[in-house]
Amino acid sequence: MVIGGDAGGMGAAARARRLDPDLEIVALEKGEWTSYSACGIPYLVSGVVTGGLEALVARSPQVHRTKYRIDVRLRHEVTGIDLDMRRVEVRNHEHGRTLHLSFDELLIGTGARPLRPDVEGIDLPFVHGVQTLDDAGRLIAHARAADCRRVVVVGGGYIGIEMAEAFTERGAEVTLVEGGAQLMRTLDPDMARRVEAAVQRFGIELRTSTPVTGFADGEVHTDSGPIRADLVILGLGVTPNSELAADAGIETGAKGAVSVTPRQRTSAEGVWAAGDCCESFHLVSRRRLHVALGTVANRQARVAGTNLGGGSATFNGVVGTAITKLCGTEVSRTGLTEHECEAAGLDAVAATITSSTRAGYYPGAEEIAVKAVAERRTGRLLGMQIVGGAPGAGKRIDAVAVALHAGFTAEELNDADLAYAPPFGPVWDPVAVAARAVAKAAVAPS
Amino acid sequence: MVIGGDAGGMGAAARARRLDPDLEIVALEKGEWTSYSACGIPYLVSGVVTGGLEALVARSPQVHRTKYRIDVRLRHEVTGIDLDMRRVEVRNHEHGRTLHLSFDELLIGTGARPLRPDVEGIDLPFVHGVQTLDDAGRLIAHARAADCRRVVVVGGGYIGIEMAEAFTERGAEVTLVEGGAQLMRTLDPDMARRVEAAVQRFGIELRTSTPVTGFADGEVHTDSGPIRADLVILGLGVTPNSELAADAGIETGAKGAVSVTPRQRTSAEGVWAAGDCCESFHLVSRRRLHVALGTVANRQARVAGTNLGGGSATFNGVVGTAITKLCGTEVSRTGLTEHECEAAGLDAVAATITSSTRAGYYPGAEEIAVKAVAERRTGRLLGMQIVGGAPGAGKRIDAVAVALHAGFTAEELNDADLAYAPPFGPVWDPVAVAARAVAKAAVAPS
Repeated sequence: MVIGGDAGGMGAAARARRLDPDLEIVALEKGEWTSYSACGIPYLVSGVVTGGLEALVARSPQVHRTKYRIDVRLRHEVTGIDLDMRRVEVRNHEHGRTLHLSFDELLIGTGARPLRPDVEGIDLPFVHGVQTLDDAGRLIAHARAADCRRVVVVGGGYIGIEMAEAFTERGAEVTLVEGGAQLMRTLDPDMARRVEAAVQRFGIELRTSTPVTGFADGEVHTDSGPIRADLVILGLGVTPNSELAADAGIETGAKGAVSVTPRQRTSAEGVWAAGDCCESFHLVSRRRLHVALGTVANRQARVAGTNLGGGSATFNGVVGTAITKLCGTEVSRTGLTEHECEAAGLDAVAATITSSTRAGYYPGAEEIAVKAVAERRTGRLLGMQIVGGAPGAGKRIDAVAVALHAGFTAEELNDADLAYAPPFGPVWDPVAVAARAVAKAAVAPS
Repeated sequence: MVIGGDAGGMGAAARARRLDPDLEIVALEKGEWTSYSACGIPYLVSGVVTGGLEALVARSPQVHRTKYRIDVRLRHEVTGIDLDMRRVEVRNHEHGRTLHLSFDELLIGTGARPLRPDVEGIDLPFVHGVQTLDDAGRLIAHARAADCRRVVVVGGGYIGIEMAEAFTERGAEVTLVEGGAQLMRTLDPDMARRVEAAVQRFGIELRTSTPVTGFADGEVHTDSGPIRADLVILGLGVTPNSELAADAGIETGAKGAVSVTPRQRTSAEGVWAAGDCCESFHLVSRRRLHVALGTVANRQARVAGTNLGGGSATFNGVVGTAITKLCGTEVSRTGLTEHECEAAGLDAVAATITSSTRAGYYPGAEEIAVKAVAERRTGRLLGMQIVGGAPGAGKRIDAVAVALHAGFTAEELNDADLAYAPPFGPVWDPVAVAARAVAKAAVAPS
């Protein structure tokens, strides 16, 4: 029995089917869609991706039914898990009926939902969160039907910025409102500054340190006065949909996400979880955290599905890698920021360098800034952040992610045999230069 | 005393100066230039890079003299090294005089030169090798003065293909002649096939398995008849300029390159070497080899310069990383090919996958082929090759290079937390997919 039709749920279901042709698999999805790329929603809104909502669907319910022989039931919302009776309570929205379905093994893949601040007007119809394809459908319908000239995005994380960019590309006047002092809290402030500059160059009005106090028809209220808005997008981050699990007595942890073992098993025998609803383990900070990213969801689902299908697999953890392209600028990070190191009690040093994405003399070279973080004295690499021009800046982070998995010192990363040719960078790769700078800083007298 | 004005020599000289302000440093260069990017020459020929030969110069002789206080002497060719007398014999081409200069420590950075087959007509003036900036100057002058409508490139390595592309972009009809059965012998034949297709799509006439037997005015003679040519470029690879060292009794090794310790010291006390003239150590095959690449030259120079300047550094070795952009296609490799594994006596398995450089639904997605090689049974990662569309295919190799430095299994690379967003790839990175495929192949019954 699988709860949830996206990456966490269906990824595990499909994987289990591959390993065991005899399993009986039922998947319950409260919405209309399965196995889609929520990461693509901003590009659908902007018009960069064409072909409608279907363009983002990797595997439709029909494909799951015929190719994977999974009994996918749409508009079936699970409202309760009874661990003693080994059954779930399900609301069939199609026929308005409630039913009970038994399971031997259960996979919870309920995902996450946008955070909605508890302020006046939050439930007005012009306020949209964007997480599921159903959300995206409603948003795009609203944007088409109404004359959305003025759009306010609340929250300056990567989803907020992506949506602000998307509506700017559609021709709207967009204001991005962030309660904190910086955009992209996944970066240190000095690196976030570069993203803010790119956002402003793109024509988005940016208001940081501006908490939203409420919504009224056509207006967003803030500390520093109202902003007119035909449409509001919430980009305040997400919270795991773990209430079903918690209500059944299953253990939860970081940010309320479902706790899992490396095999993706929950605290309950025969109950598994994968995707945005559950915790991950951070291999650098050695702490549990909640990560809501497609890559992690797919990996967890593969592990859970392997174990459900009779195989054996573990998900060892993440190193905190993320990437996005915002307003023509590539932004990536892995490991811990300087700020996160403090929070984790690590004695860290940092160094930032600027370089270029191609040899200086090669046309199209763009500036790239790389901030490296390492442990004082030992020189152990702790993380890196990259902000630079497209193409060629962001994906350099993968080499750093592998170095973190390997437990490299910054010096060892600097010594790595990275690829060079003039169309791809200077002879000393920016990542190596940053690693060298932080290696030096780590042993400098403090 | 430094012999050679490019990366190996001047990189070491500048590094030594940084560490020791009191060293007396003399650098002897037989040509006219110092510290330039030979890798940029094809882009100068094609017109992609503008600004003349100077555009490729990173540090001019004047900069070395004033900023680094290095006594750079141009048109000074070293003709002998006397280890007992601790002096070099130098031909000053400026004044036509021979002189002797004493040294305490010597750095050999004599580079490499294009291989010239011993066939009739090889010394005709329309046959050009391209290695130094002086070579490039002569070639461009020739191409401008004569009506170079028909260009023949002999040798299908990356320099040959880059030059064939450059002359095609200048509007010439280019024939690329390769004696062996495939282009790019640094790739396995199946991956080379993809490069060959790109070369042909670009409009270059390709003749493989066509050994050149000689040159006559306006013609290249081959096994299968003559080819008309106004200009010939040799791209048959390079051979280290190690005769000076060998004649002085200094030990040489792979392909005749100068043997060095990890500190870049030669077999002679107080004599060091760096760059294209000397050997490297391959961390995957555990063998010595000759690598003539700018990255390696710069790394070796930094190590040699550190040791010359009173510091302590070692160059642990390479993993065989290389990248190039050819006819719109990105080509990279690291570790060992299947073929190289055989030669190294490793029991290897391989797997090739195709994927795309962006999410399938995101515009501009290009095909990328990735071939992964691993050790049978143990699953130890041995190498990877990438051929794919620009941008975004080639530099993925860096993550693999770091994994090789770390001694990862293919499975461990597959488990790495690589960055994903729709503009950068599918949710499962092509490199991870290839790693997973070869991990499976490694444990399959043979």
